[in-house]
Parts: sequence; structure tokens; C-alpha cells
Amino acid sequence: MTVRDRVRTIVDASWFQALIITLILINALILGVETSPRVMAAHGDLLHRVDVAILGVFVLELLLRLFAHRRGFLSDPWSWFDIVIVGVALLPTSGPFAVLRVLRVLRVLRLLSVIPTLRHVVSGLFRAMPGMVSILFLVMLLLYVSGVMATQLFRDVSPEYFGDLPTSLFSLFQVSTGDSWASIAHTVMEHKPLAWIFFVLFILVSTFVALNLFIAVAVEALEQDSGGRGGEDGGGAHASGTDPDGGPARGQELILAELRALRAEVADLRRERERDQDRARARASVEG
Amino acid sequence: MTVRDRVRTIVDASWFQALIITLILINALILGVETSPRVMAAHGDLLHRVDVAILGVFVLELLLRLFAHRRGFLSDPWSWFDIVIVGVALLPTSGPFAVLRVLRVLRVLRLLSVIPTLRHVVSGLFRAMPGMVSILFLVMLLLYVSGVMATQLFRDVSPEYFGDLPTSLFSLFQVSTGDSWASIAHTVMEHKPLAWIFFVLFILVSTFVALNLFIAVAVEALEQDSGGRGGEDGGGAHASGTDPDGGPARGQELILAELRALRAEVADLRRERERDQDRARARASVEG
Amino acid sequence: MTVRDRVRTIVDASWFQALIITLILINALILGVETSPRVMAAHGDLLHRVDVAILGVFVLELLLRLFAHRRGFLSDPWSWFDIVIVGVALLPTSGPFAVLRVLRVLRVLRLLSVIPTLRHVVSGLFRAMPGMVSILFLVMLLLYVSGVMATQLFRDVSPEYFGDLPTSLFSLFQVSTGDSWASIAHTVMEHKPLAWIFFVLFILVSTFVALNLFIAVAVEALEQDSGGRGGEDGGGAHASGTDPDGGPARGQELILAELRALRAEVADLRRERERDQDRARARASVEG
Amino acid sequence: MTVRDRVRTIVDASWFQALIITLILINALILGVETSPRVMAAHGDLLHRVDVAILGVFVLELLLRLFAHRRGFLSDPWSWFDIVIVGVALLPTSGPFAVLRVLRVLRVLRLLSVIPTLRHVVSGLFRAMPGMVSILFLVMLLLYVSGVMATQLFRDVSPEYFGDLPTSLFSLFQVSTGDSWASIAHTVMEHKPLAWIFFVLFILVSTFVALNLFIAVAVEALEQDSGGRGGEDGGGAHASGTDPDGGPARGQELILAELRALRAEVADLRRERERDQDRARARASVEG
Repeated sequence: MTVRDRVRTIVDASWFQALIITLILINALILGVETSPRVMAAHGDLLHRVDVAILGVFVLELLLRLFAHRRGFLSDPWSWFDIVIVGVALLPTSGPFAVLRVLRVLRVLRLLSVIPTLRHVVSGLFRAMPGMVSILFLVMLLLYVSGVMATQLFRDVSPEYFGDLPTSLFSLFQVSTGDSWASIAHTVMEHKPLAWIFFVLFILVSTFVALNLFIAVAVEALEQDSGGRGGEDGGGAHASGTDPDGGPARGQELILAELRALRAEVADLRRERERDQDRARARASVEG
Repeated sequence: MTVRDRVRTIVDASWFQALIITLILINALILGVETSPRVMAAHGDLLHRVDVAILGVFVLELLLRLFAHRRGFLSDPWSWFDIVIVGVALLPTSGPFAVLRVLRVLRVLRLLSVIPTLRHVVSGLFRAMPGMVSILFLVMLLLYVSGVMATQLFRDVSPEYFGDLPTSLFSLFQVSTGDSWASIAHTVMEHKPLAWIFFVLFILVSTFVALNLFIAVAVEALEQDSGGRGGEDGGGAHASGTDPDGGPARGQELILAELRALRAEVADLRRERERDQDRARARASVEG
Repeated sequence: MTVRDRVRTIVDASWFQALIITLILINALILGVETSPRVMAAHGDLLHRVDVAILGVFVLELLLRLFAHRRGFLSDPWSWFDIVIVGVALLPTSGPFAVLRVLRVLRVLRLLSVIPTLRHVVSGLFRAMPGMVSILFLVMLLLYVSGVMATQLFRDVSPEYFGDLPTSLFSLFQVSTGDSWASIAHTVMEHKPLAWIFFVLFILVSTFVALNLFIAVAVEALEQDSGGRGGEDGGGAHASGTDPDGGPARGQELILAELRALRAEVADLRRERERDQDRARARASVEG
Repeated sequence: MTVRDRVRTIVDASWFQALIITLILINALILGVETSPRVMAAHGDLLHRVDVAILGVFVLELLLRLFAHRRGFLSDPWSWFDIVIVGVALLPTSGPFAVLRVLRVLRVLRLLSVIPTLRHVVSGLFRAMPGMVSILFLVMLLLYVSGVMATQLFRDVSPEYFGDLPTSLFSLFQVSTGDSWASIAHTVMEHKPLAWIFFVLFILVSTFVALNLFIAVAVEALEQDSGGRGGEDGGGAHASGTDPDGGPARGQELILAELRALRAEVADLRRERERDQDRARARASVEG
């Protein structure tokens, strides 16, 4: 048993995983507590040291997993997720990079890659993505076109909402979430009474497109659920395990397999019969 | 017929159930009326006495049901629901326990355990839970990480919304429900113009995850509906009873059963044929 | 051909239906125009006369339909819908009944009973009702219990939202629609910082129950769609007619029918074979 | 190879499509940048010239495509979409037609007709339309009836929300989107305390109808997805391609085909057997 085998046994052990999960949870707690200036004044030094120690363990863990699995480690996108998240915490956070300090809390998201169930859920979410890309692009196109039009139309009467293109885009995003859209519309309609046409149309179209985005995702999910059973991640988020036969599609495969076996059996029966007759005819001609 | 049998006949009788339901409804009415100080001043004493009397009947009912069904009573989670709800009303409500007084109204929820249809609906809601646990955990993780980040980023510019971690979490929960999120965002963006990135991303991600939470529950419900037919609680809330064959899965089972019978028949046919040939060959060798 | 037959021919004719629809639309327009005081001052008298004339035609139409179809007319719930709506317009609208004047506009809803497609859509909506009753009751129960608790807890700190039970119920309905709930919560939390627990729990529970209400209706609709094809109103609102075989269930019936025929065929084959053997054995014993 | 063939080769080439897409994107950028008065002051002239040049290319492109495909071009609704959008940009934008200037940005929507995937998504959205027409009409009917009633009831107490019919319709649309409805309701309820009945009923009914509108669209989408596979646009927006057998309906067709082949085989077997027996009987009668 080589050193590499031993390391692999360790990093794949369930106690090792449990240890990492515990460290992530402790780290999450510390990062939360660190937002309190009062606690930081009293115990800031200690918290910082624990934080650095845990980060060290994470770096060590990733190196061990890299040593143990090599190519298998680097070809797994989740490994890169871990590497980036841990890497961010190693970057300098002084001077112009102070904003990177904020990203340190992303380390808590390592729970997603470490806990298999969460990993499956997130994989499921990402699998739903492709079906959304086209409609998302459509949404952005509509937002852009509406933004340009709103800026041209309402720039002068409502500069706080439609003063320039970025402001318009933000306001229209707000309108599409339904938050206080009527107050924006009323501001504009004071000077342009026909503006209600723009707002009502924009709300109806964006709701309709969002509805279809929703349905596309739902249909994708239902199909993955019925078609993707048995796959590695198949139905991870959605599988209920109440259907032992694995759903209609699986049931039909069973039926087809059964039918093909049956047909082969009948074909055998026929072939034997023909062999019999050939032999009988041969015998008959011999006897005849 | 023992005393226990007689008690069981009583507590299982439909008139007994109707009596209890009536008492709960009267109790609900009294608890509602008791919120009016004017009514309390005039009839407070009477209402309180009726309240205590009804509570007494409930205690007696639970004792009778315990006596009648013993282990069956204690193994039913709904019994414990009843016991806790009635028990709360027996606790002292003076001094530091005054807040428990508020929980007395939970007694009205006994309708859930007493009326079978409602019991099924609530069971259905709870069955939808397991499919949600992972995604709910994901939601909480996202909320926590975003909360820590928002506190670090916006603490100074908007202390009323992001002053400390609990306040941030409440504000982000508010943003995720879509209520006045733009007003929060505008407050922050006055000093940090790039904050829109955080808010738009947070809204998109939380909407997307919520959408998937929704779909997970819906898929679970649809599967229970098609798979769980015929079970005790199966599809209680959702069953429509319009499909006599019990849906696709049931139909496929029929087909598979039919196919297996058919295959057995064909196999028999073949085995007989082979026996025939063996016999024929044996006879031939005898004759030959 | 009796008078009744002639009347029946008239009221069932498509030109008669078109006439009634036109009158309803004109009536709708008049009722809308009548909301303008300026128009009423100028043409109020004329509009009122046309209104009365159309009402007269509606009364006559209902009497003709009653005469033509008698029992068939009275047993159709849509007829009663028409009778009530037209009847309301005949009631006195002076003095204490002035509020009934407002209900005259309901006459426009006759479009629902006169246009077959709309009639089907509304029937579809009503068919979705039974699946909702239990969950709606649950929603009301939760609202009532929360209302009593909120009144007891927050009456003193926020009388404008939770002053008495009806006010609390309205505020909680508002919270459950998500409209400005955070502003209500902030008002209360100023004095009771822990009130966020109540609001967050209430929002989560009511959203979850509403989600299940939604799913119950959707599942019902999907089942009616796949199961109820071919019925009179079956899938009226939802049918697409793109599936000539009538969906999975119909396909499975075809398969089962095919299988049963096949099994009968194989069984015949076997019976004949046994008859052959019996005859062969009989002959053998004769020959032997 | 005629000139027409050569032109057709060009307009159907993928590099030509890529060129047009690039031009549309550049045009979109210019139209966005043109909303900034600062940029317009500095480079307005240049931007305008590029804009006109791109418009010229679009006109040329449409003429070439018309020349190349003739009837095929004019019978495609997407061509008319392109023609109208490009045509709008050619109209005069001075004097009373200044508002048409705003519509120039619609040119960006040419992306929908040029990129096949987006074209499919939009086709999918339009196919979902017919299922919605009846319910949309129902929604508008409810809005109109509620609008007339609200104007009559609340005109005097809340003229800013219900002063005349158009204002009422806008306010009710706002209430149906859930935006600040409680603040409108409170304004009215100050003078008409029973107005909550109107608002709560309106919200419940409009939510219920909207829910059914949603479900109608979803059911339509699910059916198109399972039934419309293999068609030209079939499931364009929703197809996932994870199911090689093409879903339950396709699987059932395979099973039926397999079964019919099997039955033919068994029937052959039987016919041969009967021929054997006939021959045997004939031989027996000869031998006998």
C-alpha cells in the first residue's frame, strides 16, 4: 500500500468529510460573529487566529485530495469550485483589494461541494439552466429595448427613474418585480398621461415571458424526473423513491424487453417447427 | 362488553366527533370575541367560565380516548398534537408566563386533528416536506452568506437595514419577498452606486432557487398523485377518482402481468413440443 | 309546428344569440359611459331609456327561453345565473336600496352564460373548486388563529394595524399578499423586537399553504385534462386536440387489448395442439 | 447558375447571417449610447452616420432576400416582422411623428427573427396564446365590471384612485398586481369601512383567475412537449433531448408495433399448423 493509497483512504473516509463539514460550520459561525464590532473588539485576535487555522486545514485538505486523486480531482468541476473559493481567501485584502475581504464568507458555500445531497441539488439547478438560456436572453433583450425607449420618452419628466439608460434599466427591473411600479408610473403619468400604455404593456409582456421561463424550467424538471432516473445525479433533487419501477419510461422499457424476449421465443418455436417439417419431409422422401 | 369497549364505542361515535367539533367552533368564537375589551368588560366572566368548561370537556375527551385506545392512542402523532395543544391551556398564564395566554387560541387548530379531511390535507403538506429539506437548507445558506456580505458592505451606509447580522438577515428576507426592495436598494446606492449588482443578483438567485423549491414540491405532489393511489392517505387532497385504472403506472403493471402470463403460455407450448419430439424420437428409435 | 316549436327555433338560432351578445356589449358600453358625470348631464336621459329598453329585451328573452324549454331551462344553473342578474336590475334602486344600483353592471357578466367558450372556461374554474375547499378552510383557520394571536400580542403597540380582530385579519391578509408587510412588521418591532418571529413564520406558512393550494388546483387540472377527454365539458379550457390517440391511458388500453387478443390466439394454438395429441394418442392406441 | 441562385447562396450563407447579427448588435449598442446627451454632443454626428449606414445594409439585405426567395420570403410572417421594423426607421421623425423616433430601437428585436433559437422560443410563446384568449377575455370582463362598480362606489371618497372609469381601471390593475393595494384600500376604507369586502373579493377572484390562466398555459406547454415532438418547431423552447425514445407516447407506439409483429408471427404459426394438419389429414385419407 503506497503513500498515495493511504492518503486516498483518509480523504475518502466519512470521518474526514465529517471533520471538514464541522470546520466549515465553525468557520461560518466565526464569519458571522466577526460582523459584530463589539465581539471583534473583545475577541478579534482569537477569532482571526482560528480563521487562519481553519483556512490552513482547507488548503492542506485540497492538497491531499489533489495528491490522492490527481487527474480525477482536477477533472471534477466541484474541485475547481473549492480551489477558487479557498484561493480567494489567500489573496491580499489590504489596500485596493479590501473588497475581496467580503468574499471570504463564500467559504461557507464549500458545504455545497462537501455534502453530497446539496451537491445533487445544485447540480439539478444547473441542469435546469440550458432550457433557460434562450428565454433569459429574450428577457434581457426586452429589458434593453424597453430601457432605451423609456429613457427617450421619460428622461425629461422623471429623471430620478429614467434619467439615463442604467437608471432606466434598474427602474424597469424594479417594475418587472412588481415593487412600487404604480408609484413610478404615477410620477411619469403626471406629465405624460399616456405612459400607462407603456407600463401596462411592459408588465403584461414581462409577466408572460417570465411565466414561460418558469414553465420551461418546470417541464425540464418533470422530464428529467421521468427520463433521467437511474443516472448518476438523475432526479437528485426531485426523486421521491415512491415508485419502485422507476416511472412510466422505465416501465415501458421493461415491457419492451419482455416483448422482445417473447417474440424471440415465438420465433424459436417457429424455426424448430420448420426444422421438424424439413426433417419429416426428408424422412418422407427417404421412406417414400 | 367491558367498560373499555363501551367507552370506545362512545369516543368513536360520529355524534361524539360532531359534539367535539361544535365545542371547538364555539371555543374559537369565544376566543375571538375575547379580543374585544368592550365585550370582556360586559360578559368577561361568563365567557371565561364557558372557556374553562370547554377546556374541561377536552381534557375529559382525551382521557376517555386514552382509556379506550391506550397504545393506539399514544402511537398516533395526532394524539400528541391534541395533548400538547390542550396541555398548553392548562399551564399557568400569570406573571412571566403571560405570553402562554396567547397560545390558548391554538386550541382551534384541534379542528385539524378532529376533521378527517383536514387531517389528510395536513398530512399531505407534511409529506411534501422531505423533498424540500435540501433546498430549504440551500436557501438558508444563501441567506446567511448574503447576510454576512451585506453587513460587511453596507453596515456604514445604511445602518437601519444592514446595521448588524440579524438586521441584515431580516432586510434580505424582505428583499426576497419583493416587498419595497427598491427603496432599500436606493438607500444603499446613494453612497455605494454599485450596490445594484448585489441586489439584482440576490433577487435573481433567490427567485431561481425558490422556483426550484416550488417545482420540487410540485413534482413530489404529482408523483404521489400518480404513484400513491390506493394508499391510506394517498392523494387525499389531490385524488380526483376519474381514472378507474389508477393512472399510467397501474396500466403498465397490468400490461407487464399480461405479458408474463403470455410468455409462460408460449414457454409451456415449447416445452410440450420438445416433450413430443423426445417421445417421437424415442418411439422412432424403438420402431427403427 | 306549434307556437312553442317556433319560439324554440328562434331562441336557439345563432342570429338570436348574436343579437343578445350585441345588446350586452352595447349595454356594457352604456354602463361604462354612465360613470362620466359630464356625459350623464348631456345625454343621461337617452342613455337611461336605451338601458331600460335593453333590460326589457333581456326580460322578454328569458321569458321566451322559459316558454320554449320549460324544465330544461329551469334545470340549467346558467339560466338561474341569468335570472338573478336580470332580476337585480328590476329591483327598486331608490332610498335604502341605492347600493343595488351598483349591481346593475353585473348584467355584463351575461356574456359568460351566452358565449359557449366562456361558459366552458367558467365551468372549468368551478370544477377546480372542490379540490380547493379543504385547503381554503385551512387557510381561513390559520388566518383566524393568527389574527386572534396578533390582536392579543400587538394590540397595544400598533393599534392601527392590530387594534381589534377585524383590523388584524385585514392586516394579516395584507401581509400574506406580501404588500408592505415589512413596514407593518417594523412598526410592531419598534416596541416588540421579537415580533419578526411571528411575521416570518406567518409568511412562510401562508406561502407554503398557498403553494399547496396552487398545486392541488394544477394537479386537478392536469388530471381532468388527461382523464376527462371526450366528456361534454371535458378539458374545455385546456384541451389542445394535438394527441389523436388520446394520451398515454388510451395507448395503454390499445396495448392491453392487443395483448389479450394475442393471448387468446396462443391459447387457441395450445388447445388445438392438445386436441391433436389426444387424437394422435387415440389413433396410436387404435393402431397399437 | 443564375444571378438569383448566387444571391440565394449569399443570403442563406452562415457568414451572411453572422454579419447581420453583428450589425444588429452594433446598432443596439449605438442606440443605447445615443441616449446619453454627453456622448451625443461629442460624437452625435458619427453615431448618426453609422446608424444610417446600418439601416441601409438592412434595407439592402431585405431586398436581396426578397429577390432570392420571392414568394417564400413574403409568405413567412417573420419577413413581415423584419419589413415593418425596418420600415418604421424609414418614416420621417420630425414634427408630429417625433414619437416614431422612439420605435427605432425596435430594430434590435430583429435578433428574434435572425437567430433561429430565439425564433423558436418566440414561436413557442405565440403557440401558447390561443389557450389564453378565453381566460384573458374573462380577466378583462372582470376588470371592466369591477371598474364600473368601483367608480360608482368610490368616486366621491377617493377621486385620485377611482375618479373616473380609466383611473379606476388603472387602480384595479395595480391592485391585481398586488402593488400597494392596501394603501389604496385604506384610503377608501376611511370613509367606506365596508370597502374591504370589495378589495378582498377582487384580489381573491383575480388571483384565482390568473392562477387558472397560468395553469392553462402550463398544461398547453406540457402537451405540446409530449405530443409535438419531432415537428418542425415541436417543443423548440422546451425540448431537452434527454429522452432518446421520445417520451411515453413514442414508447407506446414501439410497444404496439412490436405487439402487432408478434401477433402476426403467432398467426403465421397457427396457419402453418393448420396447413400441416390439412396435409396430414389428406395423407391419412390417401394412406387410409
